[in-house]
Amino acid sequence: MLTENITNKTILSGMRPTGRLHLGHYSVLENWAKLQNDYDAYFFIADYHALTTGFDKSAEVKQHIRDLALDWLASGIDPEKSAIFVQSQVREHAEMHLLFSMLTPLSWLERVPTYKDQVNQFAKTGKDITTYGFLGYPLLMAADILLYRSVGVPVGEDQLPHIEFCRELARRFNHIYQREVFPEPQALMAKIKLLPGLDGRKMSKSYDNYITLGASPEEISQRVRQMVTDPARIRKDDPGHPEICNVYTYHKFYNEEEHEEIKCCCQAGGIGCVACKKRLMAKLDEYMAPIRERREHFAANPKLVDEILEDGRVRASKKAGETLAAVRDAMGM
Amino acid sequence: MLTENITNKTILSGMRPTGRLHLGHYSVLENWAKLQNDYDAYFFIADYHALTTGFDKSAEVKQHIRDLALDWLASGIDPEKSAIFVQSQVREHAEMHLLFSMLTPLSWLERVPTYKDQVNQFAKTGKDITTYGFLGYPLLMAADILLYRSVGVPVGEDQLPHIEFCRELARRFNHIYQREVFPEPQALMAKIKLLPGLDGRKMSKSYDNYITLGASPEEISQRVRQMVTDPARIRKDDPGHPEICNVYTYHKFYNEEEHEEIKCCCQAGGIGCVACKKRLMAKLDEYMAPIRERREHFAANPKLVDEILEDGRVRASKKAGETLAAVRDAMGM
Repeated sequence: MLTENITNKTILSGMRPTGRLHLGHYSVLENWAKLQNDYDAYFFIADYHALTTGFDKSAEVKQHIRDLALDWLASGIDPEKSAIFVQSQVREHAEMHLLFSMLTPLSWLERVPTYKDQVNQFAKTGKDITTYGFLGYPLLMAADILLYRSVGVPVGEDQLPHIEFCRELARRFNHIYQREVFPEPQALMAKIKLLPGLDGRKMSKSYDNYITLGASPEEISQRVRQMVTDPARIRKDDPGHPEICNVYTYHKFYNEEEHEEIKCCCQAGGIGCVACKKRLMAKLDEYMAPIRERREHFAANPKLVDEILEDGRVRASKKAGETLAAVRDAMGM
Repeated sequence: MLTENITNKTILSGMRPTGRLHLGHYSVLENWAKLQNDYDAYFFIADYHALTTGFDKSAEVKQHIRDLALDWLASGIDPEKSAIFVQSQVREHAEMHLLFSMLTPLSWLERVPTYKDQVNQFAKTGKDITTYGFLGYPLLMAADILLYRSVGVPVGEDQLPHIEFCRELARRFNHIYQREVFPEPQALMAKIKLLPGLDGRKMSKSYDNYITLGASPEEISQRVRQMVTDPARIRKDDPGHPEICNVYTYHKFYNEEEHEEIKCCCQAGGIGCVACKKRLMAKLDEYMAPIRERREHFAANPKLVDEILEDGRVRASKKAGETLAAVRDAMGM
């Protein structure tokens, strides 16, 4: 088997543009921002993927793309290091997807565990997403990854079946055309501690239990104020139970220096919930300030963001074009 | 509903590049050559479609594309009138396909009558074609047609379910995005008399009962010689039965002036099978000569063919780009 030159350090990841990000997403982006120092990083705004479940809401996507770019830049994704681009602006994604569709057994897609789960979940809300495009979602994702001959993909655990799918497809292509065009990408699983939502459940827009990334001090105060603390505590000098209090969990995330002290004080009835929340608000605001400032900076310079996305598109297109040329060559097209 | 300007006379058709054409295809091409005088005609070499069932034989496609272009040009498809191009060279086909995939209910594809038939037929030969790409074949075809906002599609009867699929998809798009981007294309069914194969069955490569388009006089003679005539006729002055003789059927196709006379002579035992075949050979050769000459002319000028395909690509890309812009605009992308 001929071996292509794939000694690269390319990684790729993406997110669907579905609205502004929240603090729960930040740990993922922090990890990306670290990885961009060691890898040749490509981060794409997955607008085609947004259509798989939201083709009837396509008009909202334009604003969501903008918001996602701002959120990434605010979180330290550095356009000097990483290529940041919009999936549908790099036409090779669609071509790669179509070529791979010919090689992909239908049964591979039908067997992806998330497929039936998600179809059922959407069905509960009265929405039928059993479209050709939704069934093909893992294939599109594989095309995204392999188009850059990525060796690593920073993903969460829920994405592991999709990475396995992608590896199988890479092997199948290399085998059929007897040329090692694609490496088998690895999942890069970071040990990320996920911030829970304000109510202790998973942070999610649909639960309305989130703090927007780049939120103003007022928004932060208002959101923290609505957090439920230890319900057994009636008066502020009753002893509290930090281990069941979500405000305390947040202190552990954002208040490294003080959280032990707060724990003791709370247990001893020495600090009331209002005061405790005030200290969290201050810390959260301190934490958010640089993110907010970067976001405001980029939001005030739309042309700069255009340039960043255009630069990302050019870099991605170059790499994608090279891969597609190797693909066509291997296929003899 | 907003109505786009779709007052056009665009028609589109295509063929898979799977090897040289034969006389049985010529009636289809003759019809295209007529239509190009009255319509804005786009004829595409469907190399992506060839991959739906032949992804493992992609290396042969390059030569087949060349042969198909030569066969079309030989048959009078006029590059001054029609855009002749290769599907995969107009990238908008893949994009349109991906966008439409989001809108296409899986059940529509599963219900296309040819799908299960063909899967079963291939299964008999030991080949499994239940791929995502093969299931999506009618969707790709719809994308091909709608990408040019074609109002008419010259097709055979077997393709009617695919045209109906395409019309449904056009309606669905126009309805979801409340804009009449696409016309509903009509099937243009010509009354074509199909030439049977040398053995009376359908003319087909797999039956080895064909005469290659542009065949040499020697090939024609050799092919006609192997035709079976009336088996009850032992000696040349036995009375023949032209109505069951395939050579006579061919005379009806290619020997307008003499076929009545030949019929009488044969029935009266006045002409032997060898003589009858010789007259057919002469007529077939007369018929084939201009096709063969045109084919040889273009085959000897590969640069000219390159230019024709490039010109076709440019014309097709322009039109396809306009449609895709209208699609993105309607979707708000």
